[in-house]
Amino acid sequence: MDITKFAIPEIIFGRGSLNYAGQCALRLGARKVFLVSDEGIEQAGWLQRLMDILEKEGIEWVYYPGVTSNPRDFQVELGAEFYAKNGTDVIIAIGGGSAMDTAKGIAIIASNGGKIRDYEGANRVQRPLPPMMLITTTAGSGSDISQFCIITDMKRGVKMSIITRTLVPNISIVDPLILRTKSEALIIQSAVDALAHAIEAYMSRIASPFTEMHSLKAIDLILANMPRAVATRSLDALEQLSIASVSASMAFSNAGLGAEHALAHALGGHFDMPHGVVHPILLTSVMRFNLGIDPQKMAEIGRVILNHRLSSDRKTALAGIERLEAFFASFDVALRLSEIIPASERHRLEALCRMAVNDACNLTNPRPATWEELYRVCEEVW
Amino acid sequence: MDITKFAIPEIIFGRGSLNYAGQCALRLGARKVFLVSDEGIEQAGWLQRLMDILEKEGIEWVYYPGVTSNPRDFQVELGAEFYAKNGTDVIIAIGGGSAMDTAKGIAIIASNGGKIRDYEGANRVQRPLPPMMLITTTAGSGSDISQFCIITDMKRGVKMSIITRTLVPNISIVDPLILRTKSEALIIQSAVDALAHAIEAYMSRIASPFTEMHSLKAIDLILANMPRAVATRSLDALEQLSIASVSASMAFSNAGLGAEHALAHALGGHFDMPHGVVHPILLTSVMRFNLGIDPQKMAEIGRVILNHRLSSDRKTALAGIERLEAFFASFDVALRLSEIIPASERHRLEALCRMAVNDACNLTNPRPATWEELYRVCEEVW
Repeated sequence: MDITKFAIPEIIFGRGSLNYAGQCALRLGARKVFLVSDEGIEQAGWLQRLMDILEKEGIEWVYYPGVTSNPRDFQVELGAEFYAKNGTDVIIAIGGGSAMDTAKGIAIIASNGGKIRDYEGANRVQRPLPPMMLITTTAGSGSDISQFCIITDMKRGVKMSIITRTLVPNISIVDPLILRTKSEALIIQSAVDALAHAIEAYMSRIASPFTEMHSLKAIDLILANMPRAVATRSLDALEQLSIASVSASMAFSNAGLGAEHALAHALGGHFDMPHGVVHPILLTSVMRFNLGIDPQKMAEIGRVILNHRLSSDRKTALAGIERLEAFFASFDVALRLSEIIPASERHRLEALCRMAVNDACNLTNPRPATWEELYRVCEEVW
Repeated sequence: MDITKFAIPEIIFGRGSLNYAGQCALRLGARKVFLVSDEGIEQAGWLQRLMDILEKEGIEWVYYPGVTSNPRDFQVELGAEFYAKNGTDVIIAIGGGSAMDTAKGIAIIASNGGKIRDYEGANRVQRPLPPMMLITTTAGSGSDISQFCIITDMKRGVKMSIITRTLVPNISIVDPLILRTKSEALIIQSAVDALAHAIEAYMSRIASPFTEMHSLKAIDLILANMPRAVATRSLDALEQLSIASVSASMAFSNAGLGAEHALAHALGGHFDMPHGVVHPILLTSVMRFNLGIDPQKMAEIGRVILNHRLSSDRKTALAGIERLEAFFASFDVALRLSEIIPASERHRLEALCRMAVNDACNLTNPRPATWEELYRVCEEVW
C-alpha cells in the first residue's frame, strides 16, 4: 500500500450543535469574526441565530453577504478586500458549499495575496490560513470537512478546483436541525452530491482503507435514507443523510474524486447550474466507463447498493449501476443532459470536455480519461 | 442522537512514512524539537534514523531519554523541567504508548504548570499544548491518535487516565515497517490492546456512528490478521494490524473506553505489568458483564467476529464472546489472573477494584459497575 494521508477537521455533530458555535469560536481565539453566509440562510433566520450565539459569548462580527450559488472569482476577491479592511481574526461561514467555498477562497487570498485563479489545482497554497469554522446547512457539499474549494473563473467560464491540506477548516459544525428548512430540490441535490463523492472517492486512484470504509458507509446510508428524507422530511432520515455526507466528505477530501466531478465542474462553470443536478445524469455513465479498470471494487459498490452479490464481480457491479439508475429515476430529477442544457448550446460540450480533462479531479479517476472519452459520455446521456 | 464530537490528528500512514517526519516537523514550525523515545527504539536504531531525518531538514533536537514502560509521574515532571531548560518548540515522540504518553504528560506540564496528577480525569487541561508529532512504533496503544494519556501516580500506585481534546497531537505518523523490529510478545500485547479499544469503544455510552464504524472495522481486521502477523511477521499482516490500530484509536479516542480498561489501569499501576497482558484475561468477562445492557450491539460485535448471525442477538453475542476466548487461547498468553499475579498479592484486588471504579474509563462503560461487581469479574478470572 502506498503512503497515504488522512486529515479532517474537528467535527461537532448533532441536533442543536449550532449552539456550540460561540464556544468553538472562542477556542479558535475569536474576538471579531468574519462571517460569510447567503440569502437563503439569512431568510431562514439561521444567520441571525448564529450572530446571537456569537454575541452571547462577547464575540463581535462583520458580515460579508456577497455569496451566490457557484461562487465567482470576483466575489471572493471583493470578500478578501472587505476582510483586509476589518481586522477580523476567525472566518466563520454558515451555508451550503457556495458560502463555505467563498469563505475558503477569501481565507486563501487574505493570507496569500494575489488572485484566486493563482491557486487553481493541487497544493498551490503556501501560507497558513486564518482559523476557520464552517457550519454546513446542507448534507452534501462536504466543504466543511474537505480540503476542496470550488470557485468559478468568470473569464474562462470554468469552475476551478483548488485542493490543499490547509483548506481543511479547524472546526466543522453539522446540525441536522438546519436541514429542516431546506427545499426538496436542495435535499435531493445535496444527497446525490454526497453519493457521487462517496462513489468517486471509493474508485479513486488514491483511495485508502481509511477512505474506503467511509465511502461504503455513505453509499449505504444515502440509499437507505434519501427516499424518506425527501418524502417526509423526517428528522431521523435527515440526520442519517448528514452522517452520510460527513462520511462521504472524509472519503473524498482524502482520496480525491474522478472524471464525473471533473465534468460536473466544467458544465457547472459554463451553464451556472446547481452542482447537484448533473450527478443523476452523469454518475452511472462514468461508472460504466470506469467499470473495466477495477471490476472488483465496482462490485463492492454494487454489493452495498444491492445488499448482496451476484455470480461474478462484473454482474454485481452492473446490477449495482442499474439499481442506481432506477434509484435516481424515482426522484423528480433530470436524467438527460438535454433536459438541463438547451439544444442550441449542445455544440459547447466539446470545448467543455477539453477543459474537464484538466480539472484536478480527473487526476484521480481510476481510468485515465481523454476529452474524447468524456465527450462520448456526454453524448451518451444527451 | 446526542451531540457528538470527533477529533483526530492529521495521519501520515504507510511503509516509509517515517521519512516525512522532517517535513511534517517543519510544517509545525520546528527549529529545535524536544525528542522523547525509549531504550528499545534506541537499540533498534529508529531514534538515530529519526535524528538523521530531522538534521537533514536543518532541525535541531534535544533528547529526553527517561522513559520506561508504564511511565511514572516523576519521569514526566523531570521531563518537563528538562523541556523548560532547553527552549524547544515542537515535541516529537517515537515509541510505543509509554514514550508517547510521557511526551503528552511533558506537554501538559510545560504549558500548564503544576504536577501531572492535577490533570487526572476528563477535560482538566486548560491551556493549549506545544505542537506535537507522535510516531508510533506499535500497533496498539493509539496514543498517537487519541486524547488519552496514561501516567502512573507512584504514591497511590495507580495509573491515571488524563483525557482531553488538546492531547490529540497535530500529526501522527504510522509506519508499519517499524513493527518488523518488534518481539512476538509485543505484537500480541499491542494487537489485543487495539482489540479491547475497539470493543470497549463500540459498547461505550457515548459511541457514535462515526466511532462505531471504526470499531467494527478494527475488530474484523485484528481477528483476520493477528495470527499471521504473529506467526510469520508478514509485512502485509502487520500493515493490516496498523490500519486496525488507527481505526480502533479513532473510535476509543472519541467514544471512550469501559470497565475493562478501568480495571487494566488499576492492575497495571499497582503490579507494573505490560498493559497488553491483562486484556485476554479480562476482556471477555467484562463483555459478559455488559451483555444484558445492550444485547443488540453485543450481537453486532459477535456478527463481525463470527462472520454470521445466529438465531437471536443473545446467541450471536455469546457465540462471539466464546470465539474470542478461543482466539485468545490460540496465542501464548496468560488467561487467568493467577498466572500474572502472585497468590500472596490476591488480597490487593479489593482495593484495586475500589480504585478502578473511579477511573475515567469506567464512566463510559455501558453498564454502571460498582467495585463489588468489578471484584467479582476479577475473582471469576483468577
